Amino acid sequence: MNYIDLSIEIVKKESFLCIGLDSEIEKIPEFLLEKEDPVFEFNKRIIDATNDLAVAYKINTAFYESRGLKGWESLKKTEDYLKNFPEILSIADAKRGDIGNTSEQYAKAFFKNLKFDAITIAPYMGVDSVSPFLSFKDKWVILLALTSNVGASDFQFNYITESQEYLYEQIIRKSSEWGDKQNMMYVVGATQAEHLVRIRKIIPNHFLLVPGVGAQGGSLENVAKFGMNKSCGLLVNSSRGIIFAGTDGNFANKAREQAIEIQQEMKILLKKYL
Amino acid sequence: MNYIDLSIEIVKKESFLCIGLDSEIEKIPEFLLEKEDPVFEFNKRIIDATNDLAVAYKINTAFYESRGLKGWESLKKTEDYLKNFPEILSIADAKRGDIGNTSEQYAKAFFKNLKFDAITIAPYMGVDSVSPFLSFKDKWVILLALTSNVGASDFQFNYITESQEYLYEQIIRKSSEWGDKQNMMYVVGATQAEHLVRIRKIIPNHFLLVPGVGAQGGSLENVAKFGMNKSCGLLVNSSRGIIFAGTDGNFANKAREQAIEIQQEMKILLKKYL
Repeated sequence: MNYIDLSIEIVKKESFLCIGLDSEIEKIPEFLLEKEDPVFEFNKRIIDATNDLAVAYKINTAFYESRGLKGWESLKKTEDYLKNFPEILSIADAKRGDIGNTSEQYAKAFFKNLKFDAITIAPYMGVDSVSPFLSFKDKWVILLALTSNVGASDFQFNYITESQEYLYEQIIRKSSEWGDKQNMMYVVGATQAEHLVRIRKIIPNHFLLVPGVGAQGGSLENVAKFGMNKSCGLLVNSSRGIIFAGTDGNFANKAREQAIEIQQEMKILLKKYL
Repeated sequence: MNYIDLSIEIVKKESFLCIGLDSEIEKIPEFLLEKEDPVFEFNKRIIDATNDLAVAYKINTAFYESRGLKGWESLKKTEDYLKNFPEILSIADAKRGDIGNTSEQYAKAFFKNLKFDAITIAPYMGVDSVSPFLSFKDKWVILLALTSNVGASDFQFNYITESQEYLYEQIIRKSSEWGDKQNMMYVVGATQAEHLVRIRKIIPNHFLLVPGVGAQGGSLENVAKFGMNKSCGLLVNSSRGIIFAGTDGNFANKAREQAIEIQQEMKILLKKYL
């Protein structure tokens, strides 16, 4: 999926919602456990109930790897199922990244074998850990820039002597030369105006993947006000707040209700800021 | 496996060799391809031929994930097989790391489900991306500090204004407070004396996992001279130089010959610097 198609999809659906399939088997409705692949069954019903409201789904690989081979089967089936919706961007939230020949193998794993459209990558190992992913047409690297967790303050706000900027800014500035807005996005967990403004000065046109709105209480209004560009340029993720909204046979409808609520807010924000 | 057991094993075997099972199916001897699981068969024979010479094996997950479910089966079988050698440290070279609840899932995947002794972790997301791995007894986090690839120069040598040190030093200094020498090691790709000396000033007692000696031409002498501490405190990895030394039915013997050559050098260096 390319930049223009994604931007058009956002306008058509009046939504920049990404739904995170952090589908812990311990948290899915109990009645699904008798199915052959409970997690895939859960994901399928969530996708069926929400795909007209979301422009992207994000699969957090950890929640699948923790179940070993069975987890990888659920992951593969879910990604295969998402391919029935070619207008949807599928993201492997995998936080990979290694030396060149190893990143090539990860690119093969997630772009060829599993056919994801995008993958999240950690920046610490630099250019050759990222570039193997950038040679695939209409595929995306989503590089960690500013995350929303407690540990984000450990290193991401280091002030760099040479370039007089925060580490996260330097990572964005430097890495934006490795690709362009057509094949790179950035994870930006900040909902504070200050950092969104700083980031938009460096990359006015790239997409930002924003986690932590919803269940974790970030402000969607702020993200739109300070982060939106003229193609929208935002994907805002919600995981648990949507997928675990219900706990019984009605869970998919409950997820849909939550997704509608966010989408309606996004519709207003798109009118206001786009 | 704990710090003391590993240190004793090094003295007993007169070796601090880690063998990297970067077992690309395209590079293993052709005759193995008719086996049910060629990669596991390859790994098993390598392990059988070298386990008296190495103290650790490192499985690079990318080379397994790139083959999808079959790859994960080979990975699991290899790790299960390594459990026949309880004196060997098994490392998942997985470069994982995510927010707390996600890192918990990765810890479950690699320490419980797959029973690895150690896992490599990327530091960018800070404390809560690392700490879930540290609560497992006799298991290890091996944190990326200074890598040996081209992209290492992009961010790792950033000079941090507040603390007047390189980013990689700050990461080592700060993270060494999250655990101790019993549950944390560091990936140190540098073979330059200067950086080994700087690192040993911060963490005199921790183990360092050093990649890139051998096929990539780093100096083992330098690593021992400037990196060894009184328990050795080094694991030096060689992957391709050992496992792909031969290309035919004799490949395991060829691997053994290469491993002996490195082990003999290590024996001399242990006498000289331990």
